[in-house]
Amino acid sequence: MAKKEKTRDKFTIINELARRRGFFWQSYKIYGGVSGFATYGPLGAKLKQNIERKLRELFVNKLGILEIESPIIAPSKVFEASGHVDHFKEPMVECLKCKKRFRADHLLQETAKISAWEIEKMSLKELRTAIEKHKIKCPECNGAFGEPKQFLTMFKTTIGPYSKAVAYGRPEAAQGIFVEFKRLYQMAREKLPFGVLQIGHALRNEISPRQGLIRLREFTIMDLEFFFDPEEPNCFLLKDVKNEKLRLLLAKDKLKGSEKITEVSVKEALEKGYINAEWQAVFMAFAKKLLVSLGVPEEKQRFIEKLPWERAHYALQSFDQEVLVERWGWVEVSGHAYRTDYDLKRHMEFSGEDMSVYKEFEKPKEKETIVIKPIMAKLGPAFKSKAAKISEMISKANPTEVEESLKKKGFYMLDGYKILPEHVEVLRQKVLERGKHFIPHVVEPSFGSDRLVYVALEYAYHVKDDRAILGFPRDIAPIQLSVYPLVSKDGLPEKALEVYKMLVDEGFVVEYDEGGSIGRRYARADEVGIPLGITVDYETLKNETVTIRDRDSWKQVRSRIKELPELLHKYFRWKINFEDLGVPLES
Amino acid sequence: MAKKEKTRDKFTIINELARRRGFFWQSYKIYGGVSGFATYGPLGAKLKQNIERKLRELFVNKLGILEIESPIIAPSKVFEASGHVDHFKEPMVECLKCKKRFRADHLLQETAKISAWEIEKMSLKELRTAIEKHKIKCPECNGAFGEPKQFLTMFKTTIGPYSKAVAYGRPEAAQGIFVEFKRLYQMAREKLPFGVLQIGHALRNEISPRQGLIRLREFTIMDLEFFFDPEEPNCFLLKDVKNEKLRLLLAKDKLKGSEKITEVSVKEALEKGYINAEWQAVFMAFAKKLLVSLGVPEEKQRFIEKLPWERAHYALQSFDQEVLVERWGWVEVSGHAYRTDYDLKRHMEFSGEDMSVYKEFEKPKEKETIVIKPIMAKLGPAFKSKAAKISEMISKANPTEVEESLKKKGFYMLDGYKILPEHVEVLRQKVLERGKHFIPHVVEPSFGSDRLVYVALEYAYHVKDDRAILGFPRDIAPIQLSVYPLVSKDGLPEKALEVYKMLVDEGFVVEYDEGGSIGRRYARADEVGIPLGITVDYETLKNETVTIRDRDSWKQVRSRIKELPELLHKYFRWKINFEDLGVPLES
Repeated sequence: MAKKEKTRDKFTIINELARRRGFFWQSYKIYGGVSGFATYGPLGAKLKQNIERKLRELFVNKLGILEIESPIIAPSKVFEASGHVDHFKEPMVECLKCKKRFRADHLLQETAKISAWEIEKMSLKELRTAIEKHKIKCPECNGAFGEPKQFLTMFKTTIGPYSKAVAYGRPEAAQGIFVEFKRLYQMAREKLPFGVLQIGHALRNEISPRQGLIRLREFTIMDLEFFFDPEEPNCFLLKDVKNEKLRLLLAKDKLKGSEKITEVSVKEALEKGYINAEWQAVFMAFAKKLLVSLGVPEEKQRFIEKLPWERAHYALQSFDQEVLVERWGWVEVSGHAYRTDYDLKRHMEFSGEDMSVYKEFEKPKEKETIVIKPIMAKLGPAFKSKAAKISEMISKANPTEVEESLKKKGFYMLDGYKILPEHVEVLRQKVLERGKHFIPHVVEPSFGSDRLVYVALEYAYHVKDDRAILGFPRDIAPIQLSVYPLVSKDGLPEKALEVYKMLVDEGFVVEYDEGGSIGRRYARADEVGIPLGITVDYETLKNETVTIRDRDSWKQVRSRIKELPELLHKYFRWKINFEDLGVPLES
Repeated sequence: MAKKEKTRDKFTIINELARRRGFFWQSYKIYGGVSGFATYGPLGAKLKQNIERKLRELFVNKLGILEIESPIIAPSKVFEASGHVDHFKEPMVECLKCKKRFRADHLLQETAKISAWEIEKMSLKELRTAIEKHKIKCPECNGAFGEPKQFLTMFKTTIGPYSKAVAYGRPEAAQGIFVEFKRLYQMAREKLPFGVLQIGHALRNEISPRQGLIRLREFTIMDLEFFFDPEEPNCFLLKDVKNEKLRLLLAKDKLKGSEKITEVSVKEALEKGYINAEWQAVFMAFAKKLLVSLGVPEEKQRFIEKLPWERAHYALQSFDQEVLVERWGWVEVSGHAYRTDYDLKRHMEFSGEDMSVYKEFEKPKEKETIVIKPIMAKLGPAFKSKAAKISEMISKANPTEVEESLKKKGFYMLDGYKILPEHVEVLRQKVLERGKHFIPHVVEPSFGSDRLVYVALEYAYHVKDDRAILGFPRDIAPIQLSVYPLVSKDGLPEKALEVYKMLVDEGFVVEYDEGGSIGRRYARADEVGIPLGITVDYETLKNETVTIRDRDSWKQVRSRIKELPELLHKYFRWKINFEDLGVPLES
């Protein structure tokens, strides 16, 4: 198989391997397949779970981030408030001949080679002009296109038996966090900063997705919303990652048409103002490390800054973490947006619920307030029966305005009545303010699980001696161990099954493989990236030892069966290496 | 808090505790809340993950079941084939006054106290009559109801920008498995039996859900489809569970209005024909054990057989596993259906794709076939120019029919032509059949994750000395360990944080709690079910030991910090008990 692969690109190879060995494939193939939907087979589901587990370990367990699970379906109101109903749209054109519909911006990008950020700026009219100018025709039937229109890329439905109860499938998991902010804040013991993670399916009703796992209509998103006090934006984790290097492609360079990478430390990126929020810079460093741990080297990663018109409607500054892949070039795997207080404010407006938090000042602040006190003894004679009413109106007026007017003009007009300095007394009172209400700011790292699966596969894939190998980092490999009897006789299968069961009971993910020559079984295991192969041979029956084979070096060591559990637990937690697993075998 | 609880039922208590401490709550409360949607907070999300992990351990890791992940949205065709578009409906009535809509069957059950299985049998007309007879009025406004109608309880949407591309949210995860059967069969190396599990969100657009986690519109389903050869229905796991007791409420007793429990072993249930399929009986035993491991004693569980008209459209025999809860009585937590070859057959019909598997016979079977050979020398004179055509028609006719007709009647009528014995030669040929094609049968255990969360909570809940405790089994507790400094001074917090970090690095789910008196902190921990509390006190600073407190007995032991990781790993894997964790403390 591997021999032919020089003529095909990695996207094709990975997709073919994924289909054949059960990582993933397009869903509903028996009904012709539906673009933008993928099904993960047994190996892919495990790989995906392992990647999600790594993110959890990093954020939930180590940083104390809270994890929640909220529904995919939400009532329309949620997405009206979040701005998605207004903004979550893509420009669409319909072929006048075959009636197929396409994304106008993608057509221009692919056919006219205009850069994504230039197209993003265009109005529908400008898109139309560009389509005409570049003579873009329907890729299916070569027909002409009609007027570009905006298409809302959310899946629409209704809740319950009422047609007016419109709802949408969530395009991001973030809103499920924002709408529950107050309760989550209580769970964080009413202290800032704190973060909330949600991993789950999300839906974007793409117009015509055609890039496998890279562009799905249903995908898994991992949204982390990190809430902090904008007056205390310092990140206590900065010290741990301040020297990590980030490779940035800055907006200012993009505007010049340059792809220049600015490589700076996290600290420098903040000092030079390339990144606004400390938390954002720190999460970007974490994201880089996560990708490295999935097998993507630093030099194949970059963070590209979004131009103002490219940014989501809620973002003040935003970077996309991109990974270089063979077919598609730089592909976004995570987004890092500084969402400010946008979402909480909007939900506060739309729901009427208070989303602010209260902060006590370290020291109460003394604040001077002005009070305008009506003098009835003067108002009575001046306004007669209206005096009481005017007195009340004075109490309700803006004191600062009244004072200023009296000073500047010598009077204050109140609903047609002329108030003179002698009618009132201007008092200054001192008040102790103990704290204030404010809406927390949010920094959001957001990862696409499916794209991480894809890049992990593409970077794991290599060919050695004409054989395909998926060299996954050991802690994300879908299957950890393979157990083989050397041959299918003389009690070796029974012994091998015993070892297999022991390892399963120890909690390892193990495959037992008896079929075919041992060489063919090794090749099968390499192709799905099983890090270690344990072979039961004739010596096993004599001395209770087995050989362990390394997927990457194809080297072998011999170890005692009873020591396997401890050795292997250490190996998969990166505490020891292959060489530490036993005595080297001569090869 | 616990003191008041005598007047409230457990459903109320659990829901209040769940909201307050962050297990779960109704979603979108800031927008008034939406029935049938729940959000899991940090503790609930972890509890749910732990329950799902236990099911995975049981089925995926130990039985070698394949796990997949497929989309929630599927094109209409999938659910037309599965029968859901025709059958997944509930009877609905609308109040003529306030226009609110309700489930007709639920109204009758609640108000007229008619049993669920009797109502299930009723036609729309009978429902109407029953509603009139029992004078059932709108529970909201006391208005009269209109005609009952069938309401399709799937969420409907469209895929992409075409309004005709109708799709539905999946009401079960099973179809995502059936439509991919052929590929999954390859992954199982083309051997039966094999099983495929899917855990994921599912959607049922309930008319008016009002039971918290018990009846959700969006929920998590765990569907296991187990494929086997109906001619080889024996389950190789039967020996492991044959003596497990099952508490059955059989259809025959239900029909008599009895709630009699038939308690039998798995083996007896099969021998007496109470359960048809061995695999089904074995999975029922597994399901019972799973529930026991979540804290529900055997005597609070039963399996209730569905009557023919209560069963889903695809099921030949089906049992619901039910758990007794205080407010709702017996509640279904899993369904065990013998789906036969229904689903695969339907998808074969609707897609035209072959869903059969090929089975080689142990020995090839010799089969005699009849061949009718036209004799042209006789046909020619008899039929002249039609002879060639008739000869061809004879070759295509059913040979058995031709032979029988010739024998019985002395002729065979073929499209108006009378074929006589002399026109043909009847040959008998022997053919070796090496195998055959057939469609596998399916047994399905299907669990509702959310209901398992609820019953785990209700069964964990108890009150001790006026304090609420969630006594979760140790391996599903959302937080495993709590670390406390005895007081917030003298270096104890620093030391406690050190212990906390060490335990986090070891992979434990740990909470650090510094606030309030130690007694109050213990109470907080008990209320969310943290099995062990580790306290750093003045002795810790002297000799590197800590106390460990048991949530259930409130006993304490003292242990060395450096031994904690190994001891605790063993404790949470049920290898040692609390008493083995250290030296008892006098209390």
